[in-house]
Amino acid sequence: MSTTAITNLQKELQHKIDNKTKPTGSLGRLEEIALRAGMIQESIQPQIINPHIVVFAGDHGITATGLVNPYPQAVTAQMVLNFLNGGAAINVFCRQHDIQLLVVDAGVNADFGDTPPTKKFIHSKIGYGTKNYMEEPAMTNQELENAIEKGKRVVKDIHLAGCNCIGFGEMGIGNTSSAALIMAAITKLPLEICVGRGTGTNKDQFDTKLKTLQKVYEKHIKKTGANPSATDILRFFGGFEIAMMAGAYLEAAKNKMIIVVDGFISTAALLTAQLTDQSILMNCFFAHTSEERGHEKMLEYLKAEPLLNLRMRLGEGTGAALAIPLIRSAVNFLNEMASFESAGVSNKE
Amino acid sequence: MSTTAITNLQKELQHKIDNKTKPTGSLGRLEEIALRAGMIQESIQPQIINPHIVVFAGDHGITATGLVNPYPQAVTAQMVLNFLNGGAAINVFCRQHDIQLLVVDAGVNADFGDTPPTKKFIHSKIGYGTKNYMEEPAMTNQELENAIEKGKRVVKDIHLAGCNCIGFGEMGIGNTSSAALIMAAITKLPLEICVGRGTGTNKDQFDTKLKTLQKVYEKHIKKTGANPSATDILRFFGGFEIAMMAGAYLEAAKNKMIIVVDGFISTAALLTAQLTDQSILMNCFFAHTSEERGHEKMLEYLKAEPLLNLRMRLGEGTGAALAIPLIRSAVNFLNEMASFESAGVSNKE
Repeated sequence: MSTTAITNLQKELQHKIDNKTKPTGSLGRLEEIALRAGMIQESIQPQIINPHIVVFAGDHGITATGLVNPYPQAVTAQMVLNFLNGGAAINVFCRQHDIQLLVVDAGVNADFGDTPPTKKFIHSKIGYGTKNYMEEPAMTNQELENAIEKGKRVVKDIHLAGCNCIGFGEMGIGNTSSAALIMAAITKLPLEICVGRGTGTNKDQFDTKLKTLQKVYEKHIKKTGANPSATDILRFFGGFEIAMMAGAYLEAAKNKMIIVVDGFISTAALLTAQLTDQSILMNCFFAHTSEERGHEKMLEYLKAEPLLNLRMRLGEGTGAALAIPLIRSAVNFLNEMASFESAGVSNKE
Repeated sequence: MSTTAITNLQKELQHKIDNKTKPTGSLGRLEEIALRAGMIQESIQPQIINPHIVVFAGDHGITATGLVNPYPQAVTAQMVLNFLNGGAAINVFCRQHDIQLLVVDAGVNADFGDTPPTKKFIHSKIGYGTKNYMEEPAMTNQELENAIEKGKRVVKDIHLAGCNCIGFGEMGIGNTSSAALIMAAITKLPLEICVGRGTGTNKDQFDTKLKTLQKVYEKHIKKTGANPSATDILRFFGGFEIAMMAGAYLEAAKNKMIIVVDGFISTAALLTAQLTDQSILMNCFFAHTSEERGHEKMLEYLKAEPLLNLRMRLGEGTGAALAIPLIRSAVNFLNEMASFESAGVSNKE
């Protein structure tokens, strides 16, 4: 769109919003969402069509040490099966809100050979978990490229099937550690601020987690100096699920999709993606503030104002699933409410 | 229920919540909601059945003076017709979330003689608007009693029809003024803190509104001393729609319904109802913080923590309608999620 066309569309949208039968501005943030949804879709009648949550699952080499995670690594694979059986929180919320749920094996340390690829499950394994970043980078350059490309592919296919609104979730025991390392490398905030309790470490476990990650951070970041690239950061600290999600964000924005950003790990993946292309942030709505320490500061860094704060810290895309109805409400009021004129309601005297 | 039965139910609910396939506490406020919904319904399988929003509409004598309201009084009746035609924000959100919407003429200054009573519209007019409280109390004792009784009747009928979750909204040009006066009388906060801009007064209009209400407050409260009763407060400052809603809250709690509290005016009605019976607060979930000045302080007074903050200030029950899906999500996770055992997922090591 030309600059003039953009300005005109914005004016038209604002005019439409202000003429609905309500005091000006009284729908608050829903009005901002309606406006931005229209700008993203380049339409005065934006719509949410066939929304999806994609959950990327992957394992982490570090978890074998037990230094950062109270749950065993096996939980990642167990939870993938739970997703496929419909028993996890994300299943419940997607069912409630008519959101399609897709689970991607990005790199779980288990075989899902018996699980046929379906509309709900995509085999896209990069490896059986990442390497332990205490010793070496979590993944190779080749693995990283593969992960990003596969993430893009997943989103492209979903988009081609008619979806225009997407949120990303993750499952991966140990991945709050990856997210904290990524956060520190990009925001330059001290690790003490970035590292949180994850799925529920106690005080002693937390101290061990923090000390471990401080060593890891120094080991890798020392090599690249103060400004490592997105590629280096993902390669060092990994998460195949995080790298795949980074590719997914880029592809979603490229296809003018509305992106609903979930919690700590999902936002860490976004941090890396926006290093590659900052304009993707224009497509993002931030679902919620996670209770995981560090997320609030990540959001501040991105100047993002989340829609919900329910003190959740579950991952899986659960925050995104609960925020999608609010985005629907925004486009619904824009499309369905009467105007002062059409309803015969007097405006201010 | 006996104290022992209550303690046991609470333990059972907490056990059920903690055994779902998620880290302990990771669903944050949804876990609190699930627990309390179970306690309200005295069940470890609480459910949201046939939720309703009831919008009470009424006019205010003060509005003829033009001192407190930028919109003309006629808008109240026009908006009632807009509700019945499905064109208002509350219609949109109720449709989206499968919530039944009921509009009650509590005291609109217009005849709806041509509008047949339906499942959607209840004729329950106490009068053609309240009296101007600059001169005399807004309503008589008899009118107040009628309003409260009719509010109870409306809720009783809805409950008998199988609904167990209800939110109340309102429409009434000028009713932020009533709400501010009620708030000041109950919380003892200065009117400067209670009075806000309503549907959009400018700075000068706001100053006039505040000065007017200060006179009104002094005139009536002087007569009763520092601790007027709920009855006196409602009679002086009125709103037939507010008085009816006060009755509605009491009846909803009596029938063990889940109550979703909307914004500034709805919370003012609750303030009066809880003077009569403080235990009704146990049944209340607070939907959102309204952008109308005063609401946040009302919520603090009630020690209430709202679920949403979307900077909305529309009334009509719109905040409640957007919060009901979150309450549904809470009972859904409780009823539908797999447990660690049933899903074969390992708990903490």
